[in-house]
Amino acid sequence: MHTDLVAALDIGGTKIAGALVDGHGRILLRAQRPTPALEAGESVMRAVEEVLAELTGSPLWIRATAVGIGSAGPVDASAGTVSPVNVPGWRGFPLVERVRAVTGGLPVELIGDGVAITAAEHWQGAARGHDNALCMVVSTGVGGGLVLDGRLHPGPTGNAGHIGHISVELDGDPCACGSRGCVERIASGPNIARRALANGWQPGPDGDTSAAAVAEAARTGDPVAVASFARAAQALAAGIAATATLVEIDVAVIGGGVGKAGDVLFTPLRAALKTYATLSFVQRLEIVPAQMGTDAGLVGAAAAALTRRADDAAEASV
Amino acid sequence: MHTDLVAALDIGGTKIAGALVDGHGRILLRAQRPTPALEAGESVMRAVEEVLAELTGSPLWIRATAVGIGSAGPVDASAGTVSPVNVPGWRGFPLVERVRAVTGGLPVELIGDGVAITAAEHWQGAARGHDNALCMVVSTGVGGGLVLDGRLHPGPTGNAGHIGHISVELDGDPCACGSRGCVERIASGPNIARRALANGWQPGPDGDTSAAAVAEAARTGDPVAVASFARAAQALAAGIAATATLVEIDVAVIGGGVGKAGDVLFTPLRAALKTYATLSFVQRLEIVPAQMGTDAGLVGAAAAALTRRADDAAEASV
Repeated sequence: MHTDLVAALDIGGTKIAGALVDGHGRILLRAQRPTPALEAGESVMRAVEEVLAELTGSPLWIRATAVGIGSAGPVDASAGTVSPVNVPGWRGFPLVERVRAVTGGLPVELIGDGVAITAAEHWQGAARGHDNALCMVVSTGVGGGLVLDGRLHPGPTGNAGHIGHISVELDGDPCACGSRGCVERIASGPNIARRALANGWQPGPDGDTSAAAVAEAARTGDPVAVASFARAAQALAAGIAATATLVEIDVAVIGGGVGKAGDVLFTPLRAALKTYATLSFVQRLEIVPAQMGTDAGLVGAAAAALTRRADDAAEASV
Repeated sequence: MHTDLVAALDIGGTKIAGALVDGHGRILLRAQRPTPALEAGESVMRAVEEVLAELTGSPLWIRATAVGIGSAGPVDASAGTVSPVNVPGWRGFPLVERVRAVTGGLPVELIGDGVAITAAEHWQGAARGHDNALCMVVSTGVGGGLVLDGRLHPGPTGNAGHIGHISVELDGDPCACGSRGCVERIASGPNIARRALANGWQPGPDGDTSAAAVAEAARTGDPVAVASFARAAQALAAGIAATATLVEIDVAVIGGGVGKAGDVLFTPLRAALKTYATLSFVQRLEIVPAQMGTDAGLVGAAAAALTRRADDAAEASV
């Protein structure tokens, strides 16, 4: 049976990935280019167009009915524009219009990358079956997205769930975003490593000063490494508890490189959550690791396009 | 024309109010009893039943089609129970079932009091016309509720929007809820007064040490009083910014006794918001005073009952 497909784009500071995805989330065709992140906006767009050309040139393309884009943020879904922090050539760049122009006028759905990952985990991963969920990526930055009442909650501009930039320390260190004491400023990989080094942690003979190396040291009991992860866990717990207290979620899914630290992160995180998630209606909240792999962004962008198409169909039938 | 009415209950630690409300939010009949807050659960229920008896005994009652309850929290809308902190005789008290028993089996909708106030502000007050809003009560405690995508977001248990108990100070003072550095622990009226007194503020000859007296002193330039309000404003700003960053809201409505302090609160609050609300999609967020008066709880409970009735009708027609 020749069922419909959607095209998906996952746009990050390192690579631009595209795929044709079926209604079960299976990737039938993929294409990829490195992101010329520091070049002019038109050069970046050319890379997107090359990826799309591989998709539209396929005999499968005729079955494509919509395009989903998950992009590094901030995005503005209401305006159809993107301004990824790490792609300076794109500021208010009209990505939706440009993608529509080369995909035959198909409907285009734009969401932030944290929202895309969330759509993927809700569709096929660790948030499956949960009506109210927070999905996070803890990595170089800290991002996230929300599922509320059984549906993705991108918010009017596609940026909802930006948990990395809520302040959990009023008088904390200044964050790159302009605020202070943000979750990301305490819990991202680079901040875990920075804090360990500042407190006297010594990297091994290979000189690796990444958060992964700090995690390795914590696993062998290095107290400074353990303490740096504990502090990150405390900030994440406060942020997750705040989210649950504000919108009622029953699961928090954690992915990204720092999430891969496993028990070094999850054990202090679950302990800290008991401190910050105190009200009766948030006490059953569970923290689980992400299940989706590197295709999460593509699968999530596809999910958003499929949901949009279903919503359009429902509206048309009313 | 004899349009339908709904019955509304507003249950707090001080009073139990009831009303019959029409589809325009007009209160046609009201009843009230003091809450025997420290008595046994059945005594509290008797006060509720007395209020309801005045409503059901009215010739208007025949037009009532649903009951809405806004109750001091926590509530559990999924179980139909309430456990108001200040009413120790009610723990997991089956209020929905008990109210249904004396109101002829009408559908009963239960929400937390912060959610009820939000429903009222969205229907008739300062959040009217806004699809994404946070409404807060800053008073003896700090409560709130959310409107998302044009609809009230009570969450599965009816407690969403509990902004008073999100931590904005990881290592802050212990809060009665068991967490640390909660918005309420810094910004509630009693905490504004406590902080001013601890830092050397002297009450006037009347000995009034309330937050209203601190506000009065701040208005005349007392630096300790000003600083105490500035700290409260900072905590509120961080909480409001966190909410906007997580779910995208375009307005925050502030009511309650502390909200009545006016510029003493709103001026530092708007200034602090610039520090904490930094991402592009939250920068347009406005802070405005509440418009609903003391009937907000009743009007909001009525709004929830009306929405529930409309949803039931829509489902029945599918």
